[in-house]
Amino acid sequence: MSLKQGTLDLDSHNSRLEQAIESKLFRHFITGLIIVNAVVLGVLTYEDALSTQLVRSLSWFDRAVTIIFAVEIFLKLIVYRFRFFAEGWNWFDFVVVGISLAPGSEAFSVLRAMRVLRVLRLLHVVPMLRRITEALLKSLPGMGAILAVLALLTYVGAVMATNMFGDTDNPEVLELFGDLPKSAYSLFQVMTMDGWRFEVVQKVVDDGHPYAPIFFLIFIFIASFAVLNLFIALIVDALAESQRAQTEHHLEEIDHEIDEAFEEADKERSEILTRLALLQEDIAAIKNAQDKKPTDQN
Amino acid sequence: MSLKQGTLDLDSHNSRLEQAIESKLFRHFITGLIIVNAVVLGVLTYEDALSTQLVRSLSWFDRAVTIIFAVEIFLKLIVYRFRFFAEGWNWFDFVVVGISLAPGSEAFSVLRAMRVLRVLRLLHVVPMLRRITEALLKSLPGMGAILAVLALLTYVGAVMATNMFGDTDNPEVLELFGDLPKSAYSLFQVMTMDGWRFEVVQKVVDDGHPYAPIFFLIFIFIASFAVLNLFIALIVDALAESQRAQTEHHLEEIDHEIDEAFEEADKERSEILTRLALLQEDIAAIKNAQDKKPTDQN
Amino acid sequence: MSLKQGTLDLDSHNSRLEQAIESKLFRHFITGLIIVNAVVLGVLTYEDALSTQLVRSLSWFDRAVTIIFAVEIFLKLIVYRFRFFAEGWNWFDFVVVGISLAPGSEAFSVLRAMRVLRVLRLLHVVPMLRRITEALLKSLPGMGAILAVLALLTYVGAVMATNMFGDTDNPEVLELFGDLPKSAYSLFQVMTMDGWRFEVVQKVVDDGHPYAPIFFLIFIFIASFAVLNLFIALIVDALAESQRAQTEHHLEEIDHEIDEAFEEADKERSEILTRLALLQEDIAAIKNAQDKKPTDQN
Amino acid sequence: MSLKQGTLDLDSHNSRLEQAIESKLFRHFITGLIIVNAVVLGVLTYEDALSTQLVRSLSWFDRAVTIIFAVEIFLKLIVYRFRFFAEGWNWFDFVVVGISLAPGSEAFSVLRAMRVLRVLRLLHVVPMLRRITEALLKSLPGMGAILAVLALLTYVGAVMATNMFGDTDNPEVLELFGDLPKSAYSLFQVMTMDGWRFEVVQKVVDDGHPYAPIFFLIFIFIASFAVLNLFIALIVDALAESQRAQTEHHLEEIDHEIDEAFEEADKERSEILTRLALLQEDIAAIKNAQDKKPTDQN
Repeated sequence: MSLKQGTLDLDSHNSRLEQAIESKLFRHFITGLIIVNAVVLGVLTYEDALSTQLVRSLSWFDRAVTIIFAVEIFLKLIVYRFRFFAEGWNWFDFVVVGISLAPGSEAFSVLRAMRVLRVLRLLHVVPMLRRITEALLKSLPGMGAILAVLALLTYVGAVMATNMFGDTDNPEVLELFGDLPKSAYSLFQVMTMDGWRFEVVQKVVDDGHPYAPIFFLIFIFIASFAVLNLFIALIVDALAESQRAQTEHHLEEIDHEIDEAFEEADKERSEILTRLALLQEDIAAIKNAQDKKPTDQN
Repeated sequence: MSLKQGTLDLDSHNSRLEQAIESKLFRHFITGLIIVNAVVLGVLTYEDALSTQLVRSLSWFDRAVTIIFAVEIFLKLIVYRFRFFAEGWNWFDFVVVGISLAPGSEAFSVLRAMRVLRVLRLLHVVPMLRRITEALLKSLPGMGAILAVLALLTYVGAVMATNMFGDTDNPEVLELFGDLPKSAYSLFQVMTMDGWRFEVVQKVVDDGHPYAPIFFLIFIFIASFAVLNLFIALIVDALAESQRAQTEHHLEEIDHEIDEAFEEADKERSEILTRLALLQEDIAAIKNAQDKKPTDQN
Repeated sequence: MSLKQGTLDLDSHNSRLEQAIESKLFRHFITGLIIVNAVVLGVLTYEDALSTQLVRSLSWFDRAVTIIFAVEIFLKLIVYRFRFFAEGWNWFDFVVVGISLAPGSEAFSVLRAMRVLRVLRLLHVVPMLRRITEALLKSLPGMGAILAVLALLTYVGAVMATNMFGDTDNPEVLELFGDLPKSAYSLFQVMTMDGWRFEVVQKVVDDGHPYAPIFFLIFIFIASFAVLNLFIALIVDALAESQRAQTEHHLEEIDHEIDEAFEEADKERSEILTRLALLQEDIAAIKNAQDKKPTDQN
Repeated sequence: MSLKQGTLDLDSHNSRLEQAIESKLFRHFITGLIIVNAVVLGVLTYEDALSTQLVRSLSWFDRAVTIIFAVEIFLKLIVYRFRFFAEGWNWFDFVVVGISLAPGSEAFSVLRAMRVLRVLRLLHVVPMLRRITEALLKSLPGMGAILAVLALLTYVGAVMATNMFGDTDNPEVLELFGDLPKSAYSLFQVMTMDGWRFEVVQKVVDDGHPYAPIFFLIFIFIASFAVLNLFIALIVDALAESQRAQTEHHLEEIDHEIDEAFEEADKERSEILTRLALLQEDIAAIKNAQDKKPTDQN
């Protein structure tokens, strides 16, 4: 929207192109294309069960869609130029379509698998989903700090666990705490409370660390305590924010009410004062006349 | 309730029928019947341990209850006609009783098992439960959008996982990520954090994907991050809504207060102005008289 | 506290007894006794490792504590009579101490194990814990309705699961869904998401129900959806309640402010009106005198 | 900050030292040192894969960092003296650096592993993390009471479980409920809902306690019910607190508004009254003159 308003100075060719790109019809076309593409990529996972003919057709369709998306981005680049990169979602589209166009993307299974990330474009093309994703993105900064604390706790815990439990010949414990990434991974498993006792802690205990549960219980308490509380803090913050806005609005309305009423009262009081001044003049005149009369009569 | 008010124009026969259907007695009768039916369906799960005689009796009772419920719905259809379908709960009853009446329902174990869904009628027949269920239904739209985002993430993840891990001969991994529904199911398991490490991720790692944990950790973070945050967003929304209503009410009350007080003040100021006007007249008269007197005396 | 105030009409003997029972010293004595008793009952779990002499002493001590608690309750019954049963916590003490005094409590291990429930008296004897427990009890009604809905869903699900999966010779599946309580128990396990896939659903699938996951996924979604949402509803309700009180207080304060200011203004306007009336009288007098003078002069 | 303000009375030597310690540069230096130290301690977990030379260098670096931190604390002790211990974070630094300096810290793997706790200094040295950690610490008192209730419930449950299930020869059950700490640990596992059914409850059932699930279900309901509700209570409290502050501020603003407006009105009414008084005087004078005139004329 904000991009649109700045384009009045562009030549009419661009302006017509922009109208086309931003039209409802074009967006519906792209949305439909993404959905059909999602289905095609789903069907292509059954590659082995399909006829070679069909697989080839679907692959061609997929490549065609990629090219259409690339053209869409190219057109947007023409219309918006550098402002294109001012919006995060455009970066997202750029990267996601770029992956599919990468030369090796047919050779490497990971790059080929990432083609389907294009389907996530639905998250910002469909208005209902966009509203939700943007609510998510707004809470990213708060979540970031929480994740930083959790990452620090996990790192410190992983160094300790590797030092304490990693110096062993037991392959099961080596698998769990043999090096730093393994320890961090195992501590993450403990944090998710999935099989923490018999899949992780018990193996360490059996390896000659009878007091290991104390370490893991402290870690569970601190990590889950941290998450639980930071979660609360986040809610409280979000609510306080939304309330601040409401309270402000409320305040302004009452303010306006009072201002208006007092203005009215002010006007009337001015009227009273004006009339009193007039009265005073009149009375002063009467008094004056009265004072003079006796002298006149004398 | 709203249905009732529109029936005054119906013939008295219908009106009396409606009174009967909406009576407390009838509702208590239906509630009791559902509860007894629930117990009977529970007892019938012990079919093998019961005498054939008892099973036959209970089955007859169950069929009788089904017919009573069908008659209840039929009567409501007569009374309310098309308006019957205006209320969601009536659809629910219609479908749930219809399943029991379906011809094959004795033959197919699934259809027979679904007879017990009738017991869920308690959710809207008992007022205490109805209050709760309707609170649930009110939050359905918000939950729907959240589920849509989660479904999209799961679909994209499932296509990627099938492409990356499904091309193998290992039967355990094939069971987990062999095709699209299996991958989605396994990703759902990972999302619930139940046995995610050793039942899912480790099997993929052992199948020659040492970097698979990165994929699953990203999926866990995004999915649980999404759920956690959308959950917060839902609470915040619900609270903001309930507060908006309260603030509005509050505002109206203060408004009223101020209005009343200012009205009173207005009246009194008008009184003051009126009296001042009278005074001015009087004083003008005095002044006039004074001004004339000298000329009179002249 | 409320009990105390009604005792002024009792004889002084009772009143002195009440003072003793309600004294800080007595409460500290009981608190200390509960804690020591808790430790003793903990030590007694090491029965086999202790000397017979020590076990006998600790058991005697435990019986002595039980009798002291019984006497405490007896004294309260004398002081408060029927009002004793007006407070829920007294019922709690009565039942918990009664269990220890039950004749068979030495014979049956369950009854003997329940002696330790006496330690839960700390939950209402220690003020800090009492505050928390009473907050818990206040939310019981809301939780009750939520649990009723969950219980109904579980019952209906259990009847369906028993009908669909229980008719088998597979001992593993019979253990899970062989009868109604087992099915309810297994569904509860699924609801807690502990080992739901490979410990429960997979066994049913392997027993010839390839579509069983659909049933369990629907159950997980409805049950966890219900819990999640009702949880939200509970928070929103609690907050709305606490806010309503605050808003009311806020409103009253502003109300008071405005009332006071307007009262002051009212008083001053009355003063103005009074003075205007006096002025009017004076001016009327002047006018009167002026009107009469000409006739006087005539 | 609060420490700084009280140092003006100290000699200039101390004051300059304080300036250095509290300078942004010094804090950035310490932050950088902690991060590098964290990386070094991480690299040192790969001890076996590194050259002896590198390990020795890194160990020397680590010891150097410890000494720098010790000097930092020593300088703070010189500057702030006893006020040093007024801030909790200083205690934290003192203990965490002290552990690394402890004589046996090279010999005992646990003490050596705890060296990495120094890295947690980041939690209060980096402002972004400090904000979060202090939010966490603020909720500690509330969490404390909740944990006390949970600990009491677990203790009572553990005594009961040990009494009921611990008297057996089955090694698996002895491992779970053989003594008090094991029972508490197993109940904690049940509370985290990790493998509660087949890893814990089923083993007890198979050991001849068919009704054991009743005990565990009651425990799960009470423990999770307690946590869930206390969690709600905590949120509600936090919100009520943040709102109370907002409402107060809001109230004060409206108060100020009204005060100002009424003050203005007051001033004008005083003006009106003053003028009325003058008028009255004037009129009284006129009346007086009028009253005297007739006597003058007589």
